[in-house]
Parts: sequence; C-alpha cells; structure tokens
Amino acid sequence: MLSKNQIKVITRLKQKKYRVQDGFFVAEGLKVIKELLDSHLELHQLYTTVGFDRGLEQEQHVTEAELKKISFLTTPNKALALFKIPKAKAMASNQFVVALDNVRDPGNLGTIIRLCDWFGIEELVCNLETVDCYNPKVIQATMGSITRVNVSYVNLESYLKETRNPVFGAFMDGDNVYKTNLPSIGTLVLGNEANGISPEIEALITNRIAIPRFGALQATESLNVATATAILLSEFKRKM
Amino acid sequence: MLSKNQIKVITRLKQKKYRVQDGFFVAEGLKVIKELLDSHLELHQLYTTVGFDRGLEQEQHVTEAELKKISFLTTPNKALALFKIPKAKAMASNQFVVALDNVRDPGNLGTIIRLCDWFGIEELVCNLETVDCYNPKVIQATMGSITRVNVSYVNLESYLKETRNPVFGAFMDGDNVYKTNLPSIGTLVLGNEANGISPEIEALITNRIAIPRFGALQATESLNVATATAILLSEFKRKM
Repeated sequence: MLSKNQIKVITRLKQKKYRVQDGFFVAEGLKVIKELLDSHLELHQLYTTVGFDRGLEQEQHVTEAELKKISFLTTPNKALALFKIPKAKAMASNQFVVALDNVRDPGNLGTIIRLCDWFGIEELVCNLETVDCYNPKVIQATMGSITRVNVSYVNLESYLKETRNPVFGAFMDGDNVYKTNLPSIGTLVLGNEANGISPEIEALITNRIAIPRFGALQATESLNVATATAILLSEFKRKM
Repeated sequence: MLSKNQIKVITRLKQKKYRVQDGFFVAEGLKVIKELLDSHLELHQLYTTVGFDRGLEQEQHVTEAELKKISFLTTPNKALALFKIPKAKAMASNQFVVALDNVRDPGNLGTIIRLCDWFGIEELVCNLETVDCYNPKVIQATMGSITRVNVSYVNLESYLKETRNPVFGAFMDGDNVYKTNLPSIGTLVLGNEANGISPEIEALITNRIAIPRFGALQATESLNVATATAILLSEFKRKM
C-alpha cells in the first residue's frame, strides 16, 4: 500500500522546484518507461498495476485506485516510474545545434525533442525561461527521445555570443530557406509561441531565413513553432 | 443576462450531434472571432465582456462569470461566438489534395488545416471517422485557417478509388521523399496517430514515400502526424 507520504513525494514532482530539490522526474505508461529503462537513466521507483518481468527491485505493485492518486494523467496507464535526473553533459561545439528562446508549451518542447532525435541532432540548448524538459507533459510527449538528445539550459545570449558558427533564425522577411545554402554546422534558433524570437536574441542572429508561404494573401500569419522546426530541420538535413 | 436555456443551447455544441442538429459551431477569443467575421461565415450570436465596435446586432454583453459558464476554455478569453456551419462546397478535382484517414486528435487536425492554408492547399478530404473540423478545439487550433481551406467528409475508400491522380502515403519502407519526383497534382494521405494508414486505404496508395531518419538506430519510431504533414507538404511545395 502507498503511504500518504509516498503519494506526496511523487505528486509534488509536478513542480519544477521539487524536481530540482529531489533530483527525480516522473514517466508514465509501459511504452515510455520501457524505453527509459533501456537507456542510461537510473530507475528510482516503479509503481505498476501489472508485472514488469524484469526482476527490478524498485518495482512495487499498486492498485488502479492507488495509481490514479499518483498519476498526472487523466487516464493512468498501468505504470508510473521515478527516474533520477541525470547530470548535465558537456555541450559539444562542433555540430548542428537547435536552440530554443522562451518555448513555453510542454507539448511543443516534447515534439521538438522527438524531431531532434529523428534528424540526428544531439544538442538542444534552451534559454532559462524555456519549459523544463523533465516536466511530466514533456516526458510523455518525447516518447523516449529525451534519452538520446542532450538538453542543456543556459544563458542563451552568452551562449550565442560565444559561438563561432552561423546562427540561423526564422523571420517573415528572411531569405527563402529553399534557396539558401545551409551548412552542416551551425545553430538554429526557434522562438516563443506568441512572440517569436526576442529582440536580444534577434540581434545575435547572423542568417535570417523564412519558410515561404504559398497560400492566399490573407493566409495564416505564422506556423506553430513545432511545425516550423519540422520544416526547417528537414530542409537543413536534406542538404547535408 | 443569459438564461439557463441559452447556456444549455451553447454548451451542448461541444457535442457533434448538436452541431449537426442545430447547424452552429463555437469560436472563442477576440482574434479568432475577428478572423471569422472577416470571412464568408455567417455570425449567429456574439457574447462578449468587451465592446466589438462593429455595430453588430448579434452582439450581447455578458459578465466574466457568465462567459465562464458558456466557455469551453479553462481561461475564457473575452468573447464567444456562434457561427453558422457553412454548406459543404463541391470538391475541386484537379489540384493537390490532402486526405486524412482516422486522424482523431483535434489539435492535430487544427495544425494540419493551418499547414494546408500556409502551403496554399485548398482541399482537405477526411474520412468519416476523422475528428469533426467544427469541434471547438479544432476551431481554436486553426486560428481562422478553417475559412480558407475546404474541409470535406467522405467515404475515403470510394474517393480514392475514383481519383485518377497519384495517391501518396508515408510508410517506413517508402521511397526517400527527398529523392522522389513529386507532382503538383495528386493526393497525400496521412493516417491515424497510433496506427498510421489503415489496410483498406493502404491498398489504394500508388506511391509509397518515406521521410528519412537521420538519427541513431534506436531513434524515435515515428513522427507525430502533424509534423510529418509539415515536412511532406514543404517537400511537395518546394518542388513545384
């Protein structure tokens, strides 16, 4: 049986300050947990209504009612695990990097991490105001990709000032990305859902690019940040 | 003041059967409503906590507490409008068409409608099990694009059997889309979030394509349907 204290210790991990303090994050569902178990991540606790058949000493059987008490999902999915948040890895400098400036929506960050994984991009750099990658909604949206992409939180302005590689950013008045030569080493910056790239970061962009709009004049103003990331990464990669 | 009956008539539009029966859909927020007012859509009722300055006879002032009672959003946004669902337009045959097979998530359908609008694709054909485009969550996600893309619900199997244009679908074993000649007229089919394209529809695909994966062997299994749509439409359009 789960004690009141156990429930409290798990559910408070919804808040970033307790994730930082306790050093754990939550993953839910058999598929996601199995992917994380197969990675370098260290399991702390596993609560499940079914058996895992891996002889894990951290496994504890719970009832569906108990799982509902600790789950962050509307419909809990058979298992919930606590993993240790790994230590930040050193950032590699000589490769293609995606950088995020104030991306706030957990679903968008999760989708962008999956896209980095798909396109073989190992470094994702986030400014300090970007949503935490160990937020439960991000973990659910990444589907295990979080274990293969190195996510770092940094002062983005300082980071971009130091890089010697070209810094790309998407703007309405940028160069047509389909007709632009794109390098295999560089940084691609994506901005906030409502406001785009902030002025301080815009000043550090060396290459302004644009995804051409093919629709009518009165067409949609902008693309969602995750779909723009998909199109731009596809375009960078197809040219490498 | 809003009567109990008015509240009931509005909130039941969350369900498709009442949208079909009553012929109205709900849009919320100043920005979305203004975009819809500027289109061919017919306004039925407008409930707002602020003034609209357009002298609309359908405008009714409500308090924030009243707006909360009729809103589908967690945080209501100043205005809620009922628009008439327009009559289905005839489908154009000689152009590029996007077709959806069992797309269930309203956010994904909304994003795909915005992408069609961005890339100048006027025809979106959905099978009957795809989520309704007048679902409030779809309307919020499309940001007005719904007025510029003609969405039709059809028996997709019959539709694809009748078309003489090539039918494209994405599969892991398909041809590298970056190296494939893509026509300016044809149909691109996207499938269900969990199961992809169904076997009946797969049998009607004439051109199997794939988005190459650049990551490690153990990388993410698949892309989200909205990000896959973004990459594929970008690739079709850049070649036109």
